[in-house]
Amino acid sequence: MFFLPSVPTEEYAERRMETANAKCFDLVVIGGGPGGYVASIRAAQLGMSVACVDKAPSLGGTCLRVGCIPSKVLLESSAHFVFAGKQLAQHGVMVDGLRLDLGRMMKRKDQTVNLLGKGVETLFKKNKVTSLQGSARLMGAGAVEITSTDGTVSTLTSQHVLLATGSQPATLPQAPFDGERILSSKEVLSLDAVPEHLIVIGGGYIGLELGSVWNRLGSQVSVVERLPQVFPGMDGETALEAQRIFQRQGIRIHCGKQVSKVSRSGVQCHVFLEDGTSMDGSHILVAVGRKPYTQGLGLDALGVAMDHRGFVKVDAQFQTNVPGIFALGDLVPGPMLAHKAEEEAIAFAEQLSGMDTHVDHDAIPAVVYTHPELASIGATEEMLVEKGVAYRKGVFHFRANGRARASGNVDGWAKMLADEITDRILGVHILGQHAGELIHECAVAMRFNATSKDFSRICHAHPTFSEAVKESALALDARTIHA
Amino acid sequence: MFFLPSVPTEEYAERRMETANAKCFDLVVIGGGPGGYVASIRAAQLGMSVACVDKAPSLGGTCLRVGCIPSKVLLESSAHFVFAGKQLAQHGVMVDGLRLDLGRMMKRKDQTVNLLGKGVETLFKKNKVTSLQGSARLMGAGAVEITSTDGTVSTLTSQHVLLATGSQPATLPQAPFDGERILSSKEVLSLDAVPEHLIVIGGGYIGLELGSVWNRLGSQVSVVERLPQVFPGMDGETALEAQRIFQRQGIRIHCGKQVSKVSRSGVQCHVFLEDGTSMDGSHILVAVGRKPYTQGLGLDALGVAMDHRGFVKVDAQFQTNVPGIFALGDLVPGPMLAHKAEEEAIAFAEQLSGMDTHVDHDAIPAVVYTHPELASIGATEEMLVEKGVAYRKGVFHFRANGRARASGNVDGWAKMLADEITDRILGVHILGQHAGELIHECAVAMRFNATSKDFSRICHAHPTFSEAVKESALALDARTIHA
Repeated sequence: MFFLPSVPTEEYAERRMETANAKCFDLVVIGGGPGGYVASIRAAQLGMSVACVDKAPSLGGTCLRVGCIPSKVLLESSAHFVFAGKQLAQHGVMVDGLRLDLGRMMKRKDQTVNLLGKGVETLFKKNKVTSLQGSARLMGAGAVEITSTDGTVSTLTSQHVLLATGSQPATLPQAPFDGERILSSKEVLSLDAVPEHLIVIGGGYIGLELGSVWNRLGSQVSVVERLPQVFPGMDGETALEAQRIFQRQGIRIHCGKQVSKVSRSGVQCHVFLEDGTSMDGSHILVAVGRKPYTQGLGLDALGVAMDHRGFVKVDAQFQTNVPGIFALGDLVPGPMLAHKAEEEAIAFAEQLSGMDTHVDHDAIPAVVYTHPELASIGATEEMLVEKGVAYRKGVFHFRANGRARASGNVDGWAKMLADEITDRILGVHILGQHAGELIHECAVAMRFNATSKDFSRICHAHPTFSEAVKESALALDARTIHA
Repeated sequence: MFFLPSVPTEEYAERRMETANAKCFDLVVIGGGPGGYVASIRAAQLGMSVACVDKAPSLGGTCLRVGCIPSKVLLESSAHFVFAGKQLAQHGVMVDGLRLDLGRMMKRKDQTVNLLGKGVETLFKKNKVTSLQGSARLMGAGAVEITSTDGTVSTLTSQHVLLATGSQPATLPQAPFDGERILSSKEVLSLDAVPEHLIVIGGGYIGLELGSVWNRLGSQVSVVERLPQVFPGMDGETALEAQRIFQRQGIRIHCGKQVSKVSRSGVQCHVFLEDGTSMDGSHILVAVGRKPYTQGLGLDALGVAMDHRGFVKVDAQFQTNVPGIFALGDLVPGPMLAHKAEEEAIAFAEQLSGMDTHVDHDAIPAVVYTHPELASIGATEEMLVEKGVAYRKGVFHFRANGRARASGNVDGWAKMLADEITDRILGVHILGQHAGELIHECAVAMRFNATSKDFSRICHAHPTFSEAVKESALALDARTIHA
């Protein structure tokens, strides 16, 4: 049986009695995204009775329904479209009459999303998690009111309530969404025609991933970014190299430009910049980040503390200032990434069962699924400079990698940063084909405090893209073999 | 300056004097493949004067010229051909008139090989390695006679001679190569038309990779394997699952069949099996392994010891029984893999300079570049059973992986084996898209003696194929989230 850390057993039994008329669970999870469903499953595996409530008719949250998964499906399909047009013939594969069937592409996306959503349902059944559809509201510690879509109201009681409601697209006051032409990432995943000219406000990963999709499918795409370069916060020169590659792919990128106003005249959108210039497009994607989604949860009434950016404050056990109310994932500070939420979910459930699991927040990889991909873990050069850490760097270009040559994907590099004195690996930044997979050998190495020399001694299969990561470790000591 | 381990300095100086009329080097390397060229470069980096001799007009050895690289180029291109015919439309990418331009496909392969060969030349220049073309023969310890293509004979002298002449396709007495229809892997990489029916003798990685290429391009392909299943020596159930997938792809696989005789009548080849049956095909690929290539080196005259299979015997410093004569790569026992040769090459060069580098022969990954790929590291189940090691296994299928679903590549699994008592990871066997890259996080983990629990705590980016490897670690304790 699992260990209940915060409430003495007698009190717990008493509460159960009090709430005999309501449905009582060991854990109620609000939100069925990667944070919520993973916490539910893991807690159930550890013997708890768990209910998971989500507003949506299908599980998986933003990630599965309108985020990671559908975007990756469209990135995959659109990559095939552009490859068929520009590279297939180089391989001796000849075709005529290339054309896009956008409906079919979107249908495949929807089918994939539905299939994976059903998968989460199946996992809930297998693990005996009670799944409920409705809006949840905290009615005091231990009570959650659920309003289902038909208006029925019921109450769940639990000693432990986990908030895992995630995030929603941040809005830009000067460019409010209109659901038709001024759009969020969600709507841009489901357009029924290729935009003539998509203006993307925000040069982060969402803007560049979705901008890439439509650029590949034939849109003119212009990205407007407030800061001096795309992917703010990522390793500077790696982001800059990515920017150059996207520009070569035809995406127009305008950095250091602040949007002052957006207006629309029929099917034409106008974006006015603070430098006095403007641009016209057929559609606007506002992709200026995401913000925690806490509306309607009743957090204010309960006095749940939040920071000035709207993130819920939690301790190392994911508990808010209100005992028994927990939060994780996009609701709490840290990178807004599905796998960060999943790690926290597992740690939360295991801690609730008395295990000592924790999350290493310094070793969370981040991946941008453009072509080439960009994957990062640990410190950037900018972070090390700011902290005054002496470091060395090793860079190896994929153009000198045999597998990259064989496949025709030679853009980008692997870059490793290590401590000047101890040689411990501090960060790795990979821009290249399969970077999102390659980053994991770095995650493992960093978890074990590997030095770059340790890494350079690990045998890598030939020919693989991964060899470039090894050579970046060799490059730290000017002993690359293949450069 | 580098440390000379085996010969006293005075004696070395004397030898140099004796051979003043010959070209004298600190190290002479025979063979310009991955073992030879990497040893040459690393030794040169460490301050040695190095000459590398190869028979071929271009560097890179079997791997670059007629092995790993050209096969990977053709695997890449042929995968695009079959994808265009069978899957592209599912993505909403519509084309007509798909046809193969084999000449163009082959041209791209040749260009890639030439470019990478020139790359090795450039690396030699950069590192000041003297590159010589010709046949090398040992004339006694410290003297190597080179016969160039125009018949000129010269002598190099060196205190250290490294044999890195690699391997050549093993022959089958009952199926001798005829260079026209009964072919080795080398010729099958350069056919000028798609064979009608290619019979592959040998179900190892070479047979299945090259069989896959021609199957994709339209050949009927039949594989005949002597043992009960393909990929002998690899993890049994993983190999068997791969075999099922290849059969679904249209390759006919006949296991447990011994070839008794091969004959040819014009353009028709006949393969007779020991069970009395036979099959007819247009071409035969004999891919029954490779054997060390030592002909013409003069090893017998010098008394260099070899084992009964023709491998050169060496000690932990790669030295043969004749002082000053070293060997590595395919010439010595162990897996015949380019990266194994490269690791040995670096260890050899560094040991020669007094460093204590060694090769961990238990952690050499092996990759088969079929679709899906098959990648392995460490022990198979069969090896553990044979050794009597108690182990647990965790398996996670790619069909439950989000990225695999998004990309449409759902075949295969990740399988992790860990010690029953200590939980240390003993082996990982991945069958799936990008398996050849995914295996490296396992290589890193095994290098650090990670347990499956350590591995399961490492944050993996979502959605990635790598998540399946993490889930295989979770599966060891029946705590997978997504299955």
